[in-house]
Amino acid sequence: MRVLFAARDTLWTDWAPALTRLAPEMELIRADDQADPASIDAIVFAPGGPVSDLSPYVNARLVQSLWAGVERIVTNPTLTQPLARMVDPGLARGMAEFCTGWCLRAHLGMDAYAQDGVWRHDLSPPLADARRITILGMGELGRSVSAMLGGIGFRLTGVSASARPVPGVEVLGPGDLRQALSGAEILVNLLPDTPQTRNLLDADRLSWLPRGAWLINPGRGTVLDEAALMASIEAGHLAHAVLDVFRTEPLPPDHPFWSEPRITVTPHIAAHTRPETAAPVAIDNIRRALDGRPVLHLVDRRKGY
Amino acid sequence: MRVLFAARDTLWTDWAPALTRLAPEMELIRADDQADPASIDAIVFAPGGPVSDLSPYVNARLVQSLWAGVERIVTNPTLTQPLARMVDPGLARGMAEFCTGWCLRAHLGMDAYAQDGVWRHDLSPPLADARRITILGMGELGRSVSAMLGGIGFRLTGVSASARPVPGVEVLGPGDLRQALSGAEILVNLLPDTPQTRNLLDADRLSWLPRGAWLINPGRGTVLDEAALMASIEAGHLAHAVLDVFRTEPLPPDHPFWSEPRITVTPHIAAHTRPETAAPVAIDNIRRALDGRPVLHLVDRRKGY
Repeated sequence: MRVLFAARDTLWTDWAPALTRLAPEMELIRADDQADPASIDAIVFAPGGPVSDLSPYVNARLVQSLWAGVERIVTNPTLTQPLARMVDPGLARGMAEFCTGWCLRAHLGMDAYAQDGVWRHDLSPPLADARRITILGMGELGRSVSAMLGGIGFRLTGVSASARPVPGVEVLGPGDLRQALSGAEILVNLLPDTPQTRNLLDADRLSWLPRGAWLINPGRGTVLDEAALMASIEAGHLAHAVLDVFRTEPLPPDHPFWSEPRITVTPHIAAHTRPETAAPVAIDNIRRALDGRPVLHLVDRRKGY
Repeated sequence: MRVLFAARDTLWTDWAPALTRLAPEMELIRADDQADPASIDAIVFAPGGPVSDLSPYVNARLVQSLWAGVERIVTNPTLTQPLARMVDPGLARGMAEFCTGWCLRAHLGMDAYAQDGVWRHDLSPPLADARRITILGMGELGRSVSAMLGGIGFRLTGVSASARPVPGVEVLGPGDLRQALSGAEILVNLLPDTPQTRNLLDADRLSWLPRGAWLINPGRGTVLDEAALMASIEAGHLAHAVLDVFRTEPLPPDHPFWSEPRITVTPHIAAHTRPETAAPVAIDNIRRALDGRPVLHLVDRRKGY
C-alpha cells in the first residue's frame, strides 16, 4: 500500500504521523521523493502542493482530498482517478460551533451594547424560537449546523438542491429561494463553489432578505457578489455580514471589507480539517478503494462536489 | 379572588392583561387603589413599587415575586406571608441563550480577529469538547444553562450547595470550589444574592482561575468583588469579563468598568421575566395557595432564596 502525499510541505508535519499511525502497513511517500508514479496505489491531495499533473499515476485507485472543498482539483483535466471529498466529523462540529456562535451574537444583539456608559435596558432580544434563520446548503455541514441551532430553539429553514427532509427544519428547494431569503433574519451560507452557486447571492437576491438581516458566510467566497454586499450594507439594508471566505485569500490588506465596521472578517477559520478526526476517514476510504469496497463521499464531476 | 399588584406602575401595562386574561374571575388591584388590605387574598410583588409594609395584608396567603431574585423582599421584616420566587421557563431559556452566546464568543476567540487587515489564519479554536466551563449555581437556571452548553459539547463542571447530580455535568459541592475554579477556562456565575454568596468571587477565588480565563456574570453583582476583578484584569490574569449585574444598577456612567476594553457591560438583560411565560406560573401558584394545594418555589427564609 503505497500512498502519495500530494500536498504542501507544511502539512506533512501534522498529517504524516496521524496517517501512518492508523496504517502501519502503508508507505506514505512525499511528492518530491521521485517515486515511480506507476507504483502509487492512492493519493492524498490538498491544493498548493507540487503535484498538478495526475496523469502519470495510472494505478492510483483513489484521490482522497484532505479538504471538504474540491473546487481546485475537480476541474483538473489530468484527473482521471475517482475523487473523494473529505467529510471530517471534526470539521462539521467546528462549523456548527462557528455558525451557532455568530448566530447567537446576532440574535442576542451583542453589538448593540456599546461600552459608552449608556444603560440600554430596553434592548432585550426575543427568545430563539421567535428568530428565523435560513441555511443555504443542507449537506453534511448544513445538517450539523441545523442540529446545533435547532437544539437552541431557533426557527430553521434550509435550502438544498434535493430538498431532502431534515428533522426540525423546513427544507425548501432552489425554486423557493425567494421565500427562504425573505423570511431570514439571519442567513447562513454553506454552499460549495460550483458553476450553479457562483454569484448566487447577487444584488437581487440580497435585496430579498429583510431589512436588518445578518449574513454569515463560512461556505465559499464565490457564492457572494462582494460589491453587491458592500452596496447593501452601505444602503443600510443588510445590518451586518460575517465573512470567513473570500474570492482572494488571504483577503488583501487594502480590501474595503476590513474597514467597514458592519462587516466582520474572519480568516477562513470557521472550520478546518483536523488530522485527529480526518485521518481515520482518509485511511478508511483508501482501504475501501484498494479492497474494491464502495468508496465514500465520491465527487460527482458534473455537479462539482 | 382579589390579588394586589404591588409593583412599579410601569409594569402594569405589560402584566395586568397577561394576568387577567388567564384568570377572568380574578380582581387585580393596583397598589394605589386604596383597597381594604384585609380583603386581599394574594400579592404579586416586584421591588420598587408603592408597597413596602406588608403587615396590613393579614389574609394574603401568598406573596408571589415577579422576579427570580428575591433579595429585596426576603429580608423585609413586615413579610409574614409565604413568599414564592418566580421560576419562569422563558427566563431560564433566555438565560441559557445569553450564557451560550457569550461562552461561544469566548470559546471561538471572536475578539482575537481585529479588523486591521491582518489575516490571522493560525488562530483557530479547539472543539467544544476540549473547552472546560464551570457554572456556579445548579438550580433551575444552572440546569437550563448546562443543558444548552452540553448540547454544544462543552465539558461542564457545576458547583451547588446540594451537589445534586445533573446529567452531563460533573457537580461539585462548595467544599470543592478551588478544584472547580482552577479547571475553568470560562466561569459562569448564576448564584443568587445571599449572605453566603456575597463577595464569594474575591481576589483569592479569582486567582484560582487559570490565567486567560473568562468570567461571565449574569447572576448577581454582589457575588463579585468589583475591585478585585479590575485588579485581576489589569494584571492580565483574567482575560475578559462579561458583566450583566452590578452592585449599583444602572451602572453609573463614570464607573471604571465602562472604559476597560476587557470588560463588557450589558445592562441587566441576560434574562428577563416575560409576562407571556411567567403570568401562567404566577396564576397557577396563586390558585394553589388559595385552594390549599402545595405552593411551588417557596423561598426558604433562612437560605434567602
